[in-house]
Amino acid sequence: MKLYDGGRAPNPRRVTVFLAEKGIEVEKVPVDMGQLGHKSAEVTELNPLQRLPVLLLDDGTAISETVAICRYFEELHPEPPLMGTDAKDKAIVEMWSRRMELNFLAAVANAFRHCHPAMKEWEVPQIAQWGEVNRPKALGFLEMLDGELARREFIAGDRYTIADITGMIAFDFMKPARIERPEHLTNVMRWYQAVSSRPSAKV
Amino acid sequence: MKLYDGGRAPNPRRVTVFLAEKGIEVEKVPVDMGQLGHKSAEVTELNPLQRLPVLLLDDGTAISETVAICRYFEELHPEPPLMGTDAKDKAIVEMWSRRMELNFLAAVANAFRHCHPAMKEWEVPQIAQWGEVNRPKALGFLEMLDGELARREFIAGDRYTIADITGMIAFDFMKPARIERPEHLTNVMRWYQAVSSRPSAKV
Repeated sequence: MKLYDGGRAPNPRRVTVFLAEKGIEVEKVPVDMGQLGHKSAEVTELNPLQRLPVLLLDDGTAISETVAICRYFEELHPEPPLMGTDAKDKAIVEMWSRRMELNFLAAVANAFRHCHPAMKEWEVPQIAQWGEVNRPKALGFLEMLDGELARREFIAGDRYTIADITGMIAFDFMKPARIERPEHLTNVMRWYQAVSSRPSAKV
Repeated sequence: MKLYDGGRAPNPRRVTVFLAEKGIEVEKVPVDMGQLGHKSAEVTELNPLQRLPVLLLDDGTAISETVAICRYFEELHPEPPLMGTDAKDKAIVEMWSRRMELNFLAAVANAFRHCHPAMKEWEVPQIAQWGEVNRPKALGFLEMLDGELARREFIAGDRYTIADITGMIAFDFMKPARIERPEHLTNVMRWYQAVSSRPSAKV
């Protein structure tokens, strides 16, 4: 098994942190996304959408999509559970995982991809107005989240999950996306401090 | 248990088709999204993001996010499996489910929300240019999919799954989004004909 990795970009990092939390080591094939390595013939063969990471199984099956790769490892190594335990808990974790991804990470990524000069060749065409409207979307989501985090320790309950991983990485990604950290949201800041202090955040 | 339903809008319909395929009946609370019923105090209390559908459990837990609701039912009623069987199959279904959602349905929805006059009060601000660039994105995805469907019957393999549900509903949604059906993609058209002929598609 080999993981085609894209380093510090948000999606590759989500899988890296997930594996660190599970204590799983996987052979990595580093791909330099700065040199557009994700558009190489080798990666395109594994993922026609030219996105990383991609997990290549020993039987030749290629799994792409961050959460699908995490699902594979969660099924094989259920402990510690990062995607929920019973039906209700799995549904709650999936709800929050999706909210963090679709309403927060996606907003931050849109701001980055459509406004940052370095993304000119990645996002064609860049539509600055679309990037701009995503900044208040991301911050509005964090305001809602602050109320939620007043009532519990982690995003999806009292246990750290994949929703915290996505949230932490989206929060870090606000910097290149030029979205100011909302220091007044004390519950969000307390949560961010906690999750980014875990050993998994350092990998 | 009650399902706050939004009728024929894509996400509510994804859950409705999923339940029909499972043969599960759930009490529904109809919400008129045309009258902005999803922004009512009652729905906002259940889902601060004001999106439908929402599943309200008997213990008061509210589950929103289409795929999280499907996950809940898949866990409780595994047959027929719509989200995969073993670790590898679950990962493949999740990969394709996400591709159908993030690369196809989202592109169609962006074209609809940012270009259709009826969405003026829903998507603020509408950015026509962003809607426009999503049309070729959706069609480009279907071209890739056509090559995949030359090799197998359904989106994620030889069995009908949640990825087919999302794909069928996104395909239907091309009409209000004013994206022409790619009749020349014969494998896609054969697949669409098959999935939309199932009894579940009629609900």
